[in-house]
Amino acid sequence: RSTLALGGEKEQQREENVQTTGAAAAGGSGNKDEKRIVSYWGVEAPKVNKDDGSEWKWNCFRPWEAYEADLSIDLKKHHAPTTFSDKMALWTVKSLRWPTDLFFQRRYGCRAMMLETVAAVPGMVGGMLLHCKSLRRFEHSGGWIKALLEEAENERMHLMTFMEVAKPKWYERALVFAVQGVFFNAYFLGYLISPKFAHRMVGYLEEEAIHSYTEFLKELDKGNIENVPAPAIATDYWRLPPNSTLKDVVLVVRADEAHHRDVNHFASDIHYQGRQLRESPAPLGYH
Amino acid sequence: RSTLALGGEKEQQREENVQTTGAAAAGGSGNKDEKRIVSYWGVEAPKVNKDDGSEWKWNCFRPWEAYEADLSIDLKKHHAPTTFSDKMALWTVKSLRWPTDLFFQRRYGCRAMMLETVAAVPGMVGGMLLHCKSLRRFEHSGGWIKALLEEAENERMHLMTFMEVAKPKWYERALVFAVQGVFFNAYFLGYLISPKFAHRMVGYLEEEAIHSYTEFLKELDKGNIENVPAPAIATDYWRLPPNSTLKDVVLVVRADEAHHRDVNHFASDIHYQGRQLRESPAPLGYH
Ligand SMILES: [Fe+2]
Ligand SMILES: [Fe+2]
Ligand SMILES: [Fe+2]
Ligand SMILES: [Fe+2]
Repeated sequence: RSTLALGGEKEQQREENVQTTGAAAAGGSGNKDEKRIVSYWGVEAPKVNKDDGSEWKWNCFRPWEAYEADLSIDLKKHHAPTTFSDKMALWTVKSLRWPTDLFFQRRYGCRAMMLETVAAVPGMVGGMLLHCKSLRRFEHSGGWIKALLEEAENERMHLMTFMEVAKPKWYERALVFAVQGVFFNAYFLGYLISPKFAHRMVGYLEEEAIHSYTEFLKELDKGNIENVPAPAIATDYWRLPPNSTLKDVVLVVRADEAHHRDVNHFASDIHYQGRQLRESPAPLGYH
Repeated sequence: RSTLALGGEKEQQREENVQTTGAAAAGGSGNKDEKRIVSYWGVEAPKVNKDDGSEWKWNCFRPWEAYEADLSIDLKKHHAPTTFSDKMALWTVKSLRWPTDLFFQRRYGCRAMMLETVAAVPGMVGGMLLHCKSLRRFEHSGGWIKALLEEAENERMHLMTFMEVAKPKWYERALVFAVQGVFFNAYFLGYLISPKFAHRMVGYLEEEAIHSYTEFLKELDKGNIENVPAPAIATDYWRLPPNSTLKDVVLVVRADEAHHRDVNHFASDIHYQGRQLRESPAPLGYH
């Protein structure tokens, strides 16, 4: 049976739609019945083209979300912990470093892929909590909801990129499953208790991320990791020139992490001053 | 004490930042110390101007997120429930209607404001769950994460608009608090169990929303509710002409609800066909 129940009318058409279930698993475009649903609800994803006229092939992001990474960002900035809360944040991150190093050793491609599944959680949790708070309190957000969701989306794009280079094995998938369950809830709770601590911790996580991407680059330079061509999704997302390589991708990803570091340390600083994030306009589109 | 701990250096500057806590509660712009933090982390919200050259004053949304609502959308479309799950979704919504009507009666401004705090929840919950799923499964989203988050943001902008027209009383705030707690968790669970049911229910909620905004418009036409000038945030968000009124705002909000109705019924239809949302490209920027 079809769902196209047009208020009881058009029984004939409905019969024609029978047995479409489960068809067209790949991509979903070009399927006849799906097109009919689209035209019934009038919900159509607008077709867009690339600058060179070819069709834009990513549904997960659109051309206007692509950007050129700012590679000039200072990679060395560090927030020296002063308060107990800062020190605890740094200590938490540093202590997570050991098992991670041990597990991945020099498999940086795999490491990047796995860690991005974790990195995309804090922005989503923070954005969601601020969204709910804004609704509950009838307050403006200052743009922070969007800024944090943008960060989450950016991290997810890192994952989509590294997926093309390293394929996850079944036990890695299982690990991600478990880690997400724990980390999501821990961060959720942590953000409720102290957004100051939560943002500081993410700031330090990003500092570590910059460090591991620097190591990744060294391995690429040494030739220990093959400098394969950049995946198509990466060249479109970061507007990379043709013939870009994995190294170029790691460079822009590292720049992204440096931006996340700044945003999160900044957010923590705002809380440190006893203020709310919404009182300081958020850095929307800060890449 | 300040958070500007520049790796132990610049102690002098740090001392100057003492005692800024809690200052500059309104808007947060123009504060001296805040500017210093901004320049340390380099995180600055870009200044933008309106078309007429005046400064853009909203931090919660930027000019490129403003749009002109498509008022030509069919307000009468209805998904006739066929399956048991559809009927249950419709029944749930209809049974929520009675207490709501009883509580608000003809206070449509207040009703709109209160209901928008609820309406902004499903998009956020759905977007978050799809985001986590995409990470866990190393899968593309088909744009649905963003489409649902866009919906949540759009609903939150409805709230920000109606807040300007009707101010919430303390017991209304308390009610919103309680309702959000229950609804967020119920929808979260519902979406985990059956996204098909969850999206269908939102589809029906939006049908009801269209109905109550139509009633709102009738009261405005009759003069029972004063047709005040449109709030500034509304004219900027929907790019309304100058001298627009509350009636124009209700018209564009109602059009938004009709779009949400279509998106959610469509999403439910995709699940009904035994497919995943990501297999059908999401209607990004569908207003
Ligand atoms: Fe990342
Ligand atoms: Fe990051
Ligand atoms: Fe709404
Ligand atoms: Fe809606």
